[in-house]
Amino acid sequence: MKRTVGIIGVTGYSGQELLKILLSHPMVSIEYLGARSVKNRPRPMGEVLPQFRGAASLSIHPLNAEDAARRCEILFLCLPHGVAMGIVPRIIKKRKELRVIDLSGDFRLRSAGSYEQAYRIRHRSPALLKGAAYGLPEWRREAIRSARIVANPGCYATAALLGAVPLAKAGLLKGQGLIVDAKSGVTGAGRSLKEELLFTEVNEDLRAYRVNAHQHMPEMEQELRRVSGRSIRLTFVPHLVPLNRGIYATIYAPLARRLTEARLRAIYERRYGGEPFIRILPAGTWPEVKSVAGTNFCDIGLRLDPKGNQAIILVAIDNLGKGAAGQAVQNMNLMCGIPEAAGLLACHPRGSEDRFSLSRE
Amino acid sequence: MKRTVGIIGVTGYSGQELLKILLSHPMVSIEYLGARSVKNRPRPMGEVLPQFRGAASLSIHPLNAEDAARRCEILFLCLPHGVAMGIVPRIIKKRKELRVIDLSGDFRLRSAGSYEQAYRIRHRSPALLKGAAYGLPEWRREAIRSARIVANPGCYATAALLGAVPLAKAGLLKGQGLIVDAKSGVTGAGRSLKEELLFTEVNEDLRAYRVNAHQHMPEMEQELRRVSGRSIRLTFVPHLVPLNRGIYATIYAPLARRLTEARLRAIYERRYGGEPFIRILPAGTWPEVKSVAGTNFCDIGLRLDPKGNQAIILVAIDNLGKGAAGQAVQNMNLMCGIPEAAGLLACHPRGSEDRFSLSRE
Amino acid sequence: MKRTVGIIGVTGYSGQELLKILLSHPMVSIEYLGARSVKNRPRPMGEVLPQFRGAASLSIHPLNAEDAARRCEILFLCLPHGVAMGIVPRIIKKRKELRVIDLSGDFRLRSAGSYEQAYRIRHRSPALLKGAAYGLPEWRREAIRSARIVANPGCYATAALLGAVPLAKAGLLKGQGLIVDAKSGVTGAGRSLKEELLFTEVNEDLRAYRVNAHQHMPEMEQELRRVSGRSIRLTFVPHLVPLNRGIYATIYAPLARRLTEARLRAIYERRYGGEPFIRILPAGTWPEVKSVAGTNFCDIGLRLDPKGNQAIILVAIDNLGKGAAGQAVQNMNLMCGIPEAAGLLACHPRGSEDRFSLSRE
Amino acid sequence: MKRTVGIIGVTGYSGQELLKILLSHPMVSIEYLGARSVKNRPRPMGEVLPQFRGAASLSIHPLNAEDAARRCEILFLCLPHGVAMGIVPRIIKKRKELRVIDLSGDFRLRSAGSYEQAYRIRHRSPALLKGAAYGLPEWRREAIRSARIVANPGCYATAALLGAVPLAKAGLLKGQGLIVDAKSGVTGAGRSLKEELLFTEVNEDLRAYRVNAHQHMPEMEQELRRVSGRSIRLTFVPHLVPLNRGIYATIYAPLARRLTEARLRAIYERRYGGEPFIRILPAGTWPEVKSVAGTNFCDIGLRLDPKGNQAIILVAIDNLGKGAAGQAVQNMNLMCGIPEAAGLLACHPRGSEDRFSLSRE
Repeated sequence: MKRTVGIIGVTGYSGQELLKILLSHPMVSIEYLGARSVKNRPRPMGEVLPQFRGAASLSIHPLNAEDAARRCEILFLCLPHGVAMGIVPRIIKKRKELRVIDLSGDFRLRSAGSYEQAYRIRHRSPALLKGAAYGLPEWRREAIRSARIVANPGCYATAALLGAVPLAKAGLLKGQGLIVDAKSGVTGAGRSLKEELLFTEVNEDLRAYRVNAHQHMPEMEQELRRVSGRSIRLTFVPHLVPLNRGIYATIYAPLARRLTEARLRAIYERRYGGEPFIRILPAGTWPEVKSVAGTNFCDIGLRLDPKGNQAIILVAIDNLGKGAAGQAVQNMNLMCGIPEAAGLLACHPRGSEDRFSLSRE
Repeated sequence: MKRTVGIIGVTGYSGQELLKILLSHPMVSIEYLGARSVKNRPRPMGEVLPQFRGAASLSIHPLNAEDAARRCEILFLCLPHGVAMGIVPRIIKKRKELRVIDLSGDFRLRSAGSYEQAYRIRHRSPALLKGAAYGLPEWRREAIRSARIVANPGCYATAALLGAVPLAKAGLLKGQGLIVDAKSGVTGAGRSLKEELLFTEVNEDLRAYRVNAHQHMPEMEQELRRVSGRSIRLTFVPHLVPLNRGIYATIYAPLARRLTEARLRAIYERRYGGEPFIRILPAGTWPEVKSVAGTNFCDIGLRLDPKGNQAIILVAIDNLGKGAAGQAVQNMNLMCGIPEAAGLLACHPRGSEDRFSLSRE
Repeated sequence: MKRTVGIIGVTGYSGQELLKILLSHPMVSIEYLGARSVKNRPRPMGEVLPQFRGAASLSIHPLNAEDAARRCEILFLCLPHGVAMGIVPRIIKKRKELRVIDLSGDFRLRSAGSYEQAYRIRHRSPALLKGAAYGLPEWRREAIRSARIVANPGCYATAALLGAVPLAKAGLLKGQGLIVDAKSGVTGAGRSLKEELLFTEVNEDLRAYRVNAHQHMPEMEQELRRVSGRSIRLTFVPHLVPLNRGIYATIYAPLARRLTEARLRAIYERRYGGEPFIRILPAGTWPEVKSVAGTNFCDIGLRLDPKGNQAIILVAIDNLGKGAAGQAVQNMNLMCGIPEAAGLLACHPRGSEDRFSLSRE
Repeated sequence: MKRTVGIIGVTGYSGQELLKILLSHPMVSIEYLGARSVKNRPRPMGEVLPQFRGAASLSIHPLNAEDAARRCEILFLCLPHGVAMGIVPRIIKKRKELRVIDLSGDFRLRSAGSYEQAYRIRHRSPALLKGAAYGLPEWRREAIRSARIVANPGCYATAALLGAVPLAKAGLLKGQGLIVDAKSGVTGAGRSLKEELLFTEVNEDLRAYRVNAHQHMPEMEQELRRVSGRSIRLTFVPHLVPLNRGIYATIYAPLARRLTEARLRAIYERRYGGEPFIRILPAGTWPEVKSVAGTNFCDIGLRLDPKGNQAIILVAIDNLGKGAAGQAVQNMNLMCGIPEAAGLLACHPRGSEDRFSLSRE
């Protein structure tokens, strides 16, 4: 039987990507689409989002979370930070079987204090923070399966953590000196109307921003601490590059003890060998954004410094895929007991049938 | 039961796009992938084409058309013009049930003389030309269903014909003065190693090329003549624009008699109303490449000159989708008696189920 | 002696380009820079426009047209349409020797009625329209030299007119059927904050807009009429393409009588042979945006239809160069009796010395 | 009196940029242009390089270094590495007053062994290495003034060294742990015909390459050692990003002792305060590629880690400007006793007149 799902905030880039994935997901039925930009009465999906014209005869509704909660078992929230925390408490109280996947930063940090420091606003539902699962399936699968609220990780955090956590888990990461230099496509900034995001400002440009002050840093440090049992400080510099989709994280990790490159590689291959969406690249080859664009894959390349005491880990994801909507669907699959890759390997079903027993109905 | 299919020339852009579509097509089984660039022995698909890494465990073989013909019912040929005509006669003789969809220009023109004029090489299989079906489903559906050789139209020709043929068919097109001004993304030029296709030469540039001398013009004129029963001359200027995918054709059509805009619109809506992949846009809205990129859709916008004697028809397609691989799969579906939209509406299955009774197995 | 000049509206794209040209112009002294976005008190140029950091120690002032008029002999107005017509009457009355080059559409049309139809607002200085010179130097040189108000042409109009006027002037253009299919980089839309101009909306997209309804059409028709002495109707479709700078106009011109290609070429070479900024390309070569980007050049390619009754004229300019700021400086040079190419051939002074006796002081 | 100059290898991207700068340089006379791609006899410059059409009446000759040496006092060599070292010994012997600026890697390293390790070919003129000056004016001004051979630095090395050397010079850089994460536009790869540099492969992509194995690393380490007197090891990862021009280096520098951000800033401002082409950005603002594109400027932003023991230095240059042709002209100016900014501040002459007493003749 199909799960009933809905998207709140479907007109942003993450919302649109979610819609695209869910429309072809074999095991869901879309029962609600809402957007703040739709006023007064529902409008046909293809009118609001022309690329979906001629597809399913769905409507996009003026945002009404209660209505959404009534119709769906799973709700995806694609809203700016600060908004979801005002909605979630109401709707999960209203309907007991409702489960929520929040794509904003509102439920990622376990401490309201950290949240307030990172986002500069007070958290209005601190009581819910501890119960929310951090939705990084490769490292929090069990918590996600049973959680009512899943906090979908930030796109930068996803790339940084998938790259760095294997070393942290193995106790190989020093407590200091970890550096994440990240490059992001422009959809990462959302569909917000800022002069600095105009085509003419971004095209043929490249720049760092929020140098060592980005709001995704606390969730990176939180999860590194959780998995390693100790504090790991990092330096993080994000850059904006002129492409639509993709995040590339180049991670410089000082090691607690010397390794060989074979040993480094073995750690990652062992840890991620069974993961459907993580591909460890052969030695001497490096990830490319275009190999992961439009997918839920995360490609990882590895190199050891000649002296053996620093690992360079290169990570590519699609910020709208594994960095947002793809990962959200992967979380949904886990929450619903659906095969984890369902709806996410559209372009590679043959391999996936074998590996993940994805049966299409 | 699944159809057995193969791709000859899988590493070019059309070949890769075909592979991507066929991997998720519910009713086919890929039994052969071949490429001229693979030498000596088969190589894993994910090694040759990294974006397919971790997907199906398929191999890409050194090109061997006989081997391909043995394994498959349907073969897609994604080769430069001049090559397919040397291969097709051999393989269709070898295996009686084999059917071929050729994405090059080799079988699009019914006259060997026209071919030689357009492509500047002699045609080596002129006897096969008359029997080949021109693979534009919206206008040649019946011929395609039963043909052994389907000549997939050129990307420019697809856009120009889908835009202009309704007027030609209705006898509304003047015999002279039709103008097609087309703009193409760079994958339209294939993956060939030419200095003028380097990033640094194309980026921030825009230029016309082969002004009124492009090899797709004869197929446009041939099909306009076929459908209207008389000669229709056109002027065609293609332009290269700095984007990966997409063709935009702006068609200026002098009319044989005055129309109202409502009448113009009615002609297109009536003719294309039942078509799964053609979307006539509402009055006052214009196609955009991004709405069709990655799909098999063709979006058409219409405007009538104030005096009522010239129509402006704006057409957007994805040159790799409706302009190549998508259309090839649509043709395959027709040839095999599969629902015409199977595998092509991956992102919109709900609507398609209703409209095209696409049942996923 | 250096001329004193000022720019009102220096922070838009045309204003910035003007500033860049004027800073290296050997015969001007910049005495005023103003912008509506600067509030309360002057700010250092390099703070408002970081790319000019470390250059001249100029300030950008809160916009004050009277102050500007006091300081300068020549004022450039780089403001949205509808604003200049409120400012110009005041300042030219105030200071008798002041001359104005307006880059908006406010003084391009000789009839207030046409203006109101094109721009949907009432003209507030209709008395000044007849006296303003249309600033297309190649066709209005004498009027420009002596005018107090020069209306710098629209970027689309510049490309269309430089391409079509030679035929109109020679009486070779039919009164109907002229088509201008134009493609523009995104700076053509200005620096305005619209969702459709976000990087993520424009990149990898291409679309027509204001199909046959663009506000530059009336000035094209006005100038074609002026030069030919009769009404010439045109169809005009502009397209937005993902690059920063450049306009490419592909003009389809039905001819009043048959020509040979040699004759067609002779018309253009004769007419433009002495022009410093127009380059007629050799037969069989076509303009490219990148050859004119950052310059005041206009490149023109020519082709005759096989039947000899339609010319295809391809025109490339930089919309911020010959389409705006470059042309404005060319106009200023004419108005001031400075060599016409002064400050505009920065990268080719050697050739220009010979041809245009540009003496640097 | 004007200096006579020539460019060997004028059709590559660095060569074209040099040509553009030299054409407007007030104190040089271009006496030779040569290219390997020009065969048999000289061709007009505008025919080989269309963007220079209509400019000076210069010709491009089939490459003949002896001829070039006869005509010029200063020769710029814009050739792939491995070629210049075969030419330079011959021509500097032939003409005693000839001086050479080599833009390849051939004379940057003082040790033939290091060269052979970096470039994988044997050096054929090892005797000349010690006498060549490393052409980074900000740090080697005196050596450049008197050298016969100036080795123009690599583009990556220029950005890395301008960012890191102030700390190295001040003895503040640790001997280990220095990381340079660099992002480059595609002209940095030259105009070479490789599939990976096709528009369709680079656009919408981003990838690291030669991870910690790039041939510019040895020159970075050599110069850091020279200035600091001790060995400084670095990790270097270059990335290819989809834009034409620009290098962005994000430098993570572990400090030998704690600093305050004010102190860090003071070091850079003191050292670079008098430099015409280095702009230290105000606190909290970061360099952008677009602010330096088309110029010889180097913009530097600074940030200190909260703990005070790591500096983050962000550096933006134009790889064809300060990273190649611009810096080559700056070197030429020094060698000739011309004002250092001559011909390089075309767009900012007013400021430069004051600061660098650049008198235009």
